[in-house]
Amino acid sequence: MKIKAGIIGATGYAGVELVRLLLSHPNVELKAVSSVSYEGKKISDVYPNLKEICDMQLQNEEIIEVCDVIFTSLPHGLSEKFAKKCLEKGVKMIDLGADFRLDSAEEYTKWYNKTYEELALHEQSLYCIPELHRGLYKGQPIIGNPGCYPTSIALGLAPSIKSGIVVDNSIVIDSKSGVTGAGRGLADNTHYPNCNEAFSPYKVASHRHTPEIEQTLSKLAGKNVNVTFVPHLLPLNRGIVSTIYFNVVGKTDAKTLRAMYKEFYKDEKFVRVLDLGEVANLRNVKFSNYCDISIHYDEHTNRAVVVSTIDNMVKGAAGQAIQNMNIIFGLSEDSGLNYIPPAF
Amino acid sequence: MKIKAGIIGATGYAGVELVRLLLSHPNVELKAVSSVSYEGKKISDVYPNLKEICDMQLQNEEIIEVCDVIFTSLPHGLSEKFAKKCLEKGVKMIDLGADFRLDSAEEYTKWYNKTYEELALHEQSLYCIPELHRGLYKGQPIIGNPGCYPTSIALGLAPSIKSGIVVDNSIVIDSKSGVTGAGRGLADNTHYPNCNEAFSPYKVASHRHTPEIEQTLSKLAGKNVNVTFVPHLLPLNRGIVSTIYFNVVGKTDAKTLRAMYKEFYKDEKFVRVLDLGEVANLRNVKFSNYCDISIHYDEHTNRAVVVSTIDNMVKGAAGQAIQNMNIIFGLSEDSGLNYIPPAF
Amino acid sequence: MKIKAGIIGATGYAGVELVRLLLSHPNVELKAVSSVSYEGKKISDVYPNLKEICDMQLQNEEIIEVCDVIFTSLPHGLSEKFAKKCLEKGVKMIDLGADFRLDSAEEYTKWYNKTYEELALHEQSLYCIPELHRGLYKGQPIIGNPGCYPTSIALGLAPSIKSGIVVDNSIVIDSKSGVTGAGRGLADNTHYPNCNEAFSPYKVASHRHTPEIEQTLSKLAGKNVNVTFVPHLLPLNRGIVSTIYFNVVGKTDAKTLRAMYKEFYKDEKFVRVLDLGEVANLRNVKFSNYCDISIHYDEHTNRAVVVSTIDNMVKGAAGQAIQNMNIIFGLSEDSGLNYIPPAF
Amino acid sequence: MKIKAGIIGATGYAGVELVRLLLSHPNVELKAVSSVSYEGKKISDVYPNLKEICDMQLQNEEIIEVCDVIFTSLPHGLSEKFAKKCLEKGVKMIDLGADFRLDSAEEYTKWYNKTYEELALHEQSLYCIPELHRGLYKGQPIIGNPGCYPTSIALGLAPSIKSGIVVDNSIVIDSKSGVTGAGRGLADNTHYPNCNEAFSPYKVASHRHTPEIEQTLSKLAGKNVNVTFVPHLLPLNRGIVSTIYFNVVGKTDAKTLRAMYKEFYKDEKFVRVLDLGEVANLRNVKFSNYCDISIHYDEHTNRAVVVSTIDNMVKGAAGQAIQNMNIIFGLSEDSGLNYIPPAF
Repeated sequence: MKIKAGIIGATGYAGVELVRLLLSHPNVELKAVSSVSYEGKKISDVYPNLKEICDMQLQNEEIIEVCDVIFTSLPHGLSEKFAKKCLEKGVKMIDLGADFRLDSAEEYTKWYNKTYEELALHEQSLYCIPELHRGLYKGQPIIGNPGCYPTSIALGLAPSIKSGIVVDNSIVIDSKSGVTGAGRGLADNTHYPNCNEAFSPYKVASHRHTPEIEQTLSKLAGKNVNVTFVPHLLPLNRGIVSTIYFNVVGKTDAKTLRAMYKEFYKDEKFVRVLDLGEVANLRNVKFSNYCDISIHYDEHTNRAVVVSTIDNMVKGAAGQAIQNMNIIFGLSEDSGLNYIPPAF
Repeated sequence: MKIKAGIIGATGYAGVELVRLLLSHPNVELKAVSSVSYEGKKISDVYPNLKEICDMQLQNEEIIEVCDVIFTSLPHGLSEKFAKKCLEKGVKMIDLGADFRLDSAEEYTKWYNKTYEELALHEQSLYCIPELHRGLYKGQPIIGNPGCYPTSIALGLAPSIKSGIVVDNSIVIDSKSGVTGAGRGLADNTHYPNCNEAFSPYKVASHRHTPEIEQTLSKLAGKNVNVTFVPHLLPLNRGIVSTIYFNVVGKTDAKTLRAMYKEFYKDEKFVRVLDLGEVANLRNVKFSNYCDISIHYDEHTNRAVVVSTIDNMVKGAAGQAIQNMNIIFGLSEDSGLNYIPPAF
Repeated sequence: MKIKAGIIGATGYAGVELVRLLLSHPNVELKAVSSVSYEGKKISDVYPNLKEICDMQLQNEEIIEVCDVIFTSLPHGLSEKFAKKCLEKGVKMIDLGADFRLDSAEEYTKWYNKTYEELALHEQSLYCIPELHRGLYKGQPIIGNPGCYPTSIALGLAPSIKSGIVVDNSIVIDSKSGVTGAGRGLADNTHYPNCNEAFSPYKVASHRHTPEIEQTLSKLAGKNVNVTFVPHLLPLNRGIVSTIYFNVVGKTDAKTLRAMYKEFYKDEKFVRVLDLGEVANLRNVKFSNYCDISIHYDEHTNRAVVVSTIDNMVKGAAGQAIQNMNIIFGLSEDSGLNYIPPAF
Repeated sequence: MKIKAGIIGATGYAGVELVRLLLSHPNVELKAVSSVSYEGKKISDVYPNLKEICDMQLQNEEIIEVCDVIFTSLPHGLSEKFAKKCLEKGVKMIDLGADFRLDSAEEYTKWYNKTYEELALHEQSLYCIPELHRGLYKGQPIIGNPGCYPTSIALGLAPSIKSGIVVDNSIVIDSKSGVTGAGRGLADNTHYPNCNEAFSPYKVASHRHTPEIEQTLSKLAGKNVNVTFVPHLLPLNRGIVSTIYFNVVGKTDAKTLRAMYKEFYKDEKFVRVLDLGEVANLRNVKFSNYCDISIHYDEHTNRAVVVSTIDNMVKGAAGQAIQNMNIIFGLSEDSGLNYIPPAF
């Protein structure tokens, strides 16, 4: 018996990546796809890469009841109503948007200019980066799927934060993302001639992923953790590199740090801690669910540098959502996720 | 019982793409990989995308006897000796290089400056684009896997050539290939700053794929077919687009032409004939074994324009080699090849 | 006394390229810039590359009377009214749009779905690729500045057409343009993730530049010339490569052809006929007013291949417009156009 | 009387950029170019963009005596001998390599594995970022032209360092450079398919520009300044973005910081301090000698973020070398450097 899955918001970038991955999942039947913008069209008319592979018609939101699990991939502020319906119907929901990521209703309102309308829903949800939070899964019906930047950063910092070696207020995170991270919507800064042969940060120290990052790190630390987070737009399609800097309590060296990471992730298939001397490159994780982490240490300033890279559309969105689905349905976490990153 | 496969020349671009695809093939065990340049190293040291996925050690050529099938991916002139060994050991061989593509020893010498040393070997080999030549497979122990440009072009022209509508000597083929087509070797024209934001043809009307293209078309036509073939280097990694022009005998229209193609390929999973008004884009076939073909007709010059696109590393190399392996071993032709092209 | 120049439509891509080039022209004072979309803003707010270099305020169309020459860079159908005003005020006008390119009102209506409202205006205009048409300049007050594709193609074909060696109905033109050719407007096909690592033709045998190309070639030939013209979108910012194929009357060879081109362009600074064995690459003309042409000959099909490349924004738009302005005002044709293409 | 200039190492990337800029300089005659690798060839055979513009023959090093100024653009360890000759002949020398950047012979040996053979030469040289060091020019015959990363960083930090607001040991510099920064030599990491759609840091906290950065900052501060410096390779041709983080003594805000920068650079043509809310993008300085700086402040961590961007080949190499030449010869500093960055 296959899991019947549906996608609400299937024509956004994360949505169509979910389509691709779910179609290849051995335990899933992609039952229905919906899209407000393209209702009635075939999804392969919108994304011709899917021609003759998935010619399903895009429906409206009434797909919930025929599914066992619903993935929502929507602009913030739109997911609560679907969560409510899912709960009523006993359907699991995995939200790839921002509506089930922040515990604090105040923070959500501050950063997203929206309000949690149904607080009870949020109490039944779990924010889940599997490698860090799978132990907290107790049957919650709603999963808040993490953001792309926060995933790369939390995986890159968790071992250090948990071990207590990070000097307070010393964390600087310089992240760079491919353009798919900006989504399908047309905008001046993603118009090809503006974006090609160009590079700059954006939303400097003011990106909405900041509270999500700090929430995760603070929980891991057992105390309040603040970071300076600056994202940049890379002229390429896929992948995030987060270069993470922090000062170390006492003295250490790269070898010790690297051993700590290796131990922390020793049972994690999707986290590859590189050897000393290797440097994480988004090229090596593209189109896969891997997170590659390399460890460096600047002795003369006593500062650690951790480089963490993921494919923003897979481990940073659709792949991690499926990993969460696998947890919910008791499957092996890597089911349907054994993509080998291509060499080029 | 899985098919035991080995790759000679595993660290070239086609070789490492074979590694990736064979590792995911449900009926194959990747038994051994060899490389002259990197013997003794782990393949994941050369290609870190494979880290923890395939850490096999690169061997020398003595891998033949432990395998059921050997893929050779070598510069021209080096495959005959492996073919001989494979024949002796009863091992099937699929050659991704140029040594088993041309029937005529003279043409081979003219274009490649090498000589067929063992003519008997070539009599036991089959040049095979499955959609066009699978009917000719009668157990030949050696397969000459077609070149990337010739695959895109033969699939784009076959229905027209076979139907007899192509005016003699009217075929112009303007092809454009991504840079992986130039392979792994360093060269001035593939140095990033020379290649990025640059575009030009190369080997104008003198590319080595010309005789292979003409051989295939001539056989389909039952008479000698000459073409003007000009390849160009595109500033992107993967994919070939061949824009093919020819004059039509009598008059026709796009609808009639398109119907003919649709009929010709009606049972072919990997050839997608687009609807009228759609235009083939390499974006929609990347990382997959599909060939997308769109049909256009310029009424005012009575000239057909066929656009044919493939991923040069998959349908143009490693994917087609596996499709040929599937034929040899009686598997479904799409075994291990059900890759869905990503939307981006 | 400097020439006072104004630009109507200064915030489009050709417009802002004109701003850049005119600011460096030793005989020009950029007097005023106008833009419907951004009236009242500083042009450097729209294009921050101009910050502190040109902070002029964008005005409305009332800039004509303070200028000696007006450049219009507008969507088709909008230039006639400005031409009329310019004529009334005795101001020269150079139109970078499509409204003064086609002699035939019928063709204009057929391809652009608009009508020439004031036929008299068109009788006072000159379509001018300087290398081919400067002899026709007799003080016409309006210049129809040629399109980018037609410029690359006419320069690539003129010597052959004029010499009578081109077989009737044998011309195939496969052109490839960088994305700036599509202009500033946002569109799905120029959204970065759709355009990057992608390639395809568009408007196959139906692009609006076709009648302009045929008009120029027919006049050169003294008889009707038809071509098949297929443009493609290249994933890079600037530059056009036109690969032009035609059959040759009788027999010839590359050396003879090349000598003919060299002679034809012997006094032309901006046309560089490459040596035999060299291949024109858009990389070598970017950011300059040069047109590079390489000559090839396919003996076995008796077909010539001419590769012609320009920077679509300079020789294909703003640079050629300034070259035309220099003709009007009796300046050396290369005034303000001595840009050296960078190596990278 | 024009300044007679020569270039030793003219076929490297900085060398050929110098050729381009010097050819357009109104006060310079490019007298001679030399190249070990290509002696005897025309420079336009090596760089066909220069065809018919500069067809000078590449000579050997014996060009010094016919010049007033020599630019050396060589691998480290090779410049001293030319400096000695220049001194003997009374010819000025501007070294674009690393041999005259570091005051400390020990540091030079530590980072470059070479030795200063002639200490006296170094005492007669000046390291000069004009905006920071022009006051130190007292006729020194040798100029050590700064590195690309150090230029972007020193200009980004100077106002803060000099004002004393930077907390000790808090500086983190995350820089990203286009691929021309890696030069002309072929290497695996600059092979197009390895570099395109890829991104990673390199030489993490171990790049040779680190001591140069710290030397400049320490002199500005009047005390020892250490930084963590991590460079990254961007998949584009030109430009550097340095994102610079530091903690602020006491409290401040973006407006105050920005006003300080604006005041510091109020007379500097080539440094553009952006308005609050704007973000520096390498797109806006490409092909020009500008350095754009944007100022940001993260209140919740009390950390400043300064973004500094230059064209690595112009302000980071050849342009700054010409700016230094202008100082030596008493010309206006912007002579021959009034390039307007193109919009795309």
